[in-house]
Amino acid sequence: MANNLLKGKRGIIFGALNEQSIAWKVAERAHEEGATFVLTNAPIAMRMGEINDLAKKTGSEIIPADATSVEDLENLVSKSMEILGGKIDFILHSIGMSVNVRKGRHYTDENYDWTMKGIDVSALSFHKVLQTAKKLDAMNEWGSILALTYIAAQRVFPDYNDMADNKAYLESIARSFGYYFGVDKKVRVNTISQSPTMTTAGSGVKGFNEFINFSEQMSPLGNASALACADYCITMFSDLTKYVTMQNLFHDGGFSTTGVTQAVIDKFGE
Amino acid sequence: MANNLLKGKRGIIFGALNEQSIAWKVAERAHEEGATFVLTNAPIAMRMGEINDLAKKTGSEIIPADATSVEDLENLVSKSMEILGGKIDFILHSIGMSVNVRKGRHYTDENYDWTMKGIDVSALSFHKVLQTAKKLDAMNEWGSILALTYIAAQRVFPDYNDMADNKAYLESIARSFGYYFGVDKKVRVNTISQSPTMTTAGSGVKGFNEFINFSEQMSPLGNASALACADYCITMFSDLTKYVTMQNLFHDGGFSTTGVTQAVIDKFGE
Amino acid sequence: MANNLLKGKRGIIFGALNEQSIAWKVAERAHEEGATFVLTNAPIAMRMGEINDLAKKTGSEIIPADATSVEDLENLVSKSMEILGGKIDFILHSIGMSVNVRKGRHYTDENYDWTMKGIDVSALSFHKVLQTAKKLDAMNEWGSILALTYIAAQRVFPDYNDMADNKAYLESIARSFGYYFGVDKKVRVNTISQSPTMTTAGSGVKGFNEFINFSEQMSPLGNASALACADYCITMFSDLTKYVTMQNLFHDGGFSTTGVTQAVIDKFGE
Amino acid sequence: MANNLLKGKRGIIFGALNEQSIAWKVAERAHEEGATFVLTNAPIAMRMGEINDLAKKTGSEIIPADATSVEDLENLVSKSMEILGGKIDFILHSIGMSVNVRKGRHYTDENYDWTMKGIDVSALSFHKVLQTAKKLDAMNEWGSILALTYIAAQRVFPDYNDMADNKAYLESIARSFGYYFGVDKKVRVNTISQSPTMTTAGSGVKGFNEFINFSEQMSPLGNASALACADYCITMFSDLTKYVTMQNLFHDGGFSTTGVTQAVIDKFGE
Repeated sequence: MANNLLKGKRGIIFGALNEQSIAWKVAERAHEEGATFVLTNAPIAMRMGEINDLAKKTGSEIIPADATSVEDLENLVSKSMEILGGKIDFILHSIGMSVNVRKGRHYTDENYDWTMKGIDVSALSFHKVLQTAKKLDAMNEWGSILALTYIAAQRVFPDYNDMADNKAYLESIARSFGYYFGVDKKVRVNTISQSPTMTTAGSGVKGFNEFINFSEQMSPLGNASALACADYCITMFSDLTKYVTMQNLFHDGGFSTTGVTQAVIDKFGE
Repeated sequence: MANNLLKGKRGIIFGALNEQSIAWKVAERAHEEGATFVLTNAPIAMRMGEINDLAKKTGSEIIPADATSVEDLENLVSKSMEILGGKIDFILHSIGMSVNVRKGRHYTDENYDWTMKGIDVSALSFHKVLQTAKKLDAMNEWGSILALTYIAAQRVFPDYNDMADNKAYLESIARSFGYYFGVDKKVRVNTISQSPTMTTAGSGVKGFNEFINFSEQMSPLGNASALACADYCITMFSDLTKYVTMQNLFHDGGFSTTGVTQAVIDKFGE
Repeated sequence: MANNLLKGKRGIIFGALNEQSIAWKVAERAHEEGATFVLTNAPIAMRMGEINDLAKKTGSEIIPADATSVEDLENLVSKSMEILGGKIDFILHSIGMSVNVRKGRHYTDENYDWTMKGIDVSALSFHKVLQTAKKLDAMNEWGSILALTYIAAQRVFPDYNDMADNKAYLESIARSFGYYFGVDKKVRVNTISQSPTMTTAGSGVKGFNEFINFSEQMSPLGNASALACADYCITMFSDLTKYVTMQNLFHDGGFSTTGVTQAVIDKFGE
Repeated sequence: MANNLLKGKRGIIFGALNEQSIAWKVAERAHEEGATFVLTNAPIAMRMGEINDLAKKTGSEIIPADATSVEDLENLVSKSMEILGGKIDFILHSIGMSVNVRKGRHYTDENYDWTMKGIDVSALSFHKVLQTAKKLDAMNEWGSILALTYIAAQRVFPDYNDMADNKAYLESIARSFGYYFGVDKKVRVNTISQSPTMTTAGSGVKGFNEFINFSEQMSPLGNASALACADYCITMFSDLTKYVTMQNLFHDGGFSTTGVTQAVIDKFGE
């Protein structure tokens, strides 16, 4: 199902860890649609991952980069332009991590050093990517930059913990930076707010199975898969969505505008 | 618990049907806070109601008015100014009715004559009230006008049917008319989006008990009562909220910004 | 720039009046992307239009239909399936008209018969299209239905008048009906909130040039054109956006999330 | 205009710097309404301030606290309960500072150490206040906690810089923590999104006069004053708003729901 939507486009894809990753699916789909791109991940994450297979399959090079390090990002962006032979057309930011979540600290008992680390990895890293790309004048006009987010930025999901606040910050960066990148370079910046997805990241969260189940029953179309999300990212990287910017786009089977479904309400009549 | 918040203020209160009504509670509380007001209802609704008791208790007069009739509204507003001895400071619109709901027609099988009737009663009536008040120059500067609404205007609740669309229209009127009433007369117009409330109107809706239960468990503070809503209306009618206008204000125990509660998620692990 | 995104898909396109129309551009682009479709318009609108040229160019048939008439819509949908040889994959609703606007009635001086007519044409017509399509079981699974809207549904633009309220109702229909169409048939329903566009409809609005100018300067990417909007519609009709439903999607160069631009603020320092 | 709305209530007020401060006005009004409270500020801010006058006037004690220091906050909250003779009923967080703004760094050229400092002072400090209050079990049931914010959290205002992202994080904290504080202790947490106000903080921002002017003309009721904001805070601290929680409340004369005013559009026809 390739439509050449990204023919000739050059990209950078953060966060492809393994086959479950949304970023992995985006890479596969972007390849099918004719794009060339660089894959990147934190050095530590890559040791765990099977990213080499993906690189081989999609003819991509891998450049390790800690997304919280401006130096690493400068190296990544510069090298990517060299490797790909020109300026960048699209970037996917699919990075998130909360130390408080990992270590089981409750939201009302945060360790603030960990909170800060989570902000840096999950949110500020996006600003650093954008700022680096802008300073290096690395983006083509009408380029498209996406970050993945979750509706916890708008509504509370107890186990999501401080990732909710990180995602709110992340979405704000998309708007704020999207303004400047739009005015100066016609580059658009958006976030996609995806259904909960059974990725490596998701599966570490307490009670995630119950939550996936709730979300499935609360979404008129069911939860969106990682592959469906990748398809949506392709449209946002294509030239067909040039005037969509500074938006948070729900890709969630209708969850965000559903107050309750019959399937859920039925559980309350028992 | 009276604080003289509405001392000397004059109002018109639509929709007090019986003791369960939010409008009834608003009338009682407005009386306690020192306001004088006129009670009004559709002639047909009043026959069913115990509104005379409320009038006696609060020292109010009753003027029947069909809120879809501009003629009735002109009479109501003019007479109210006469009775109360001056221009109006606050108005509560608590009116809603869907013929499709009443007659059990599904949202995907609407009878459009009934839909139109519902729009007129539930939404356009608010515009008619506002337009009449403005044309008769009946509002004091910094007056406050409220309509009651529900979050179905933003998210789907299956059994709410075409009332969802009516509420969306109603909330839009508050913004649109609020602009003109603000610029011209410093009058503010807002809607309060209240928890589901076991009023006569609510109790007619299919599956309402299950729904109230779901909403209770989905709200960190629980569902807001009619009396709590009346308290909130008092603050919005007072001089302490002069710069709040064209807003939809959630009075719902946190329901609107809660994605899920632990109490709800627990039902999905069973 | 064709990508076969709609290859084999069948559609119905409402509202192509002339070359300025967004619906016209959607028809041209849908044709390029491999779709077949029926064009429709109100009988009275078609007499003014050059829709025959479009039909010839895109190999389409024209079926006149008053979108407020359920009978006309039943005929349209049935005939479309016959002509196109199967169920429908996409529908574009691009219809709007306010008698109050046309006749120069101010928002605070509405003629309510005209208001009702405007609701019927601009908003309820969308429900009628959806209800007809659902009753006739005319949509393929994962079909996509779009209506065009404007941000006046969320914020006040004085000259937009009662069209603001109509658009709020329209967007609510997309959510409400999207729920049922999603649960029952996997059909998604969305609205696209487009920049002000110099169409025949737009050009009739008082002060529209100033407004277009304001909007241009308030949008980091500038106003989106009708053609860009058509491109966006194509992505929403394609299989790449299957899990986007019940959303209002801003296609506006960033206007909706921009509080002010430097270009606009500069006018206030003079 | 005192209504005894806070009679017997105990509070902590952060951020009263001088007579222009919103927090200063809140303290004066809370005193008039019968509350007792502790005033607090960063040690460094207090040296500049005239907070002693305010303390004398309102019969309050002052406890210096760096709101980024959990230790300071624990001392503040514990001492406040001692001084006031019981648990706390309300807290106002009115704290914000961006080093990038102060030092004139553009949003696309952030110094990330400064960004982190700004997050800590402007946003994370709110979490620290909440977490400290909860851990010390310092809040009475149905207590009310407010933080002040600005609409830059939703829409871009170029000169607001990284304060926009800080405010987005702050508002997310209100929701996230509001959930737990609500479920566990019936304490509500909200933010008030206030018109731009000519405070010491505001006056340091480049182009602030033009911006205030724009905002004034873009708000149907004009910009809300610091005193009006204080009045609104009083209602939110009172028992009349018990079921409002996890909300961001616009106190802005209608700015947030106004797309454009006639006054603004007129500048684009010249």
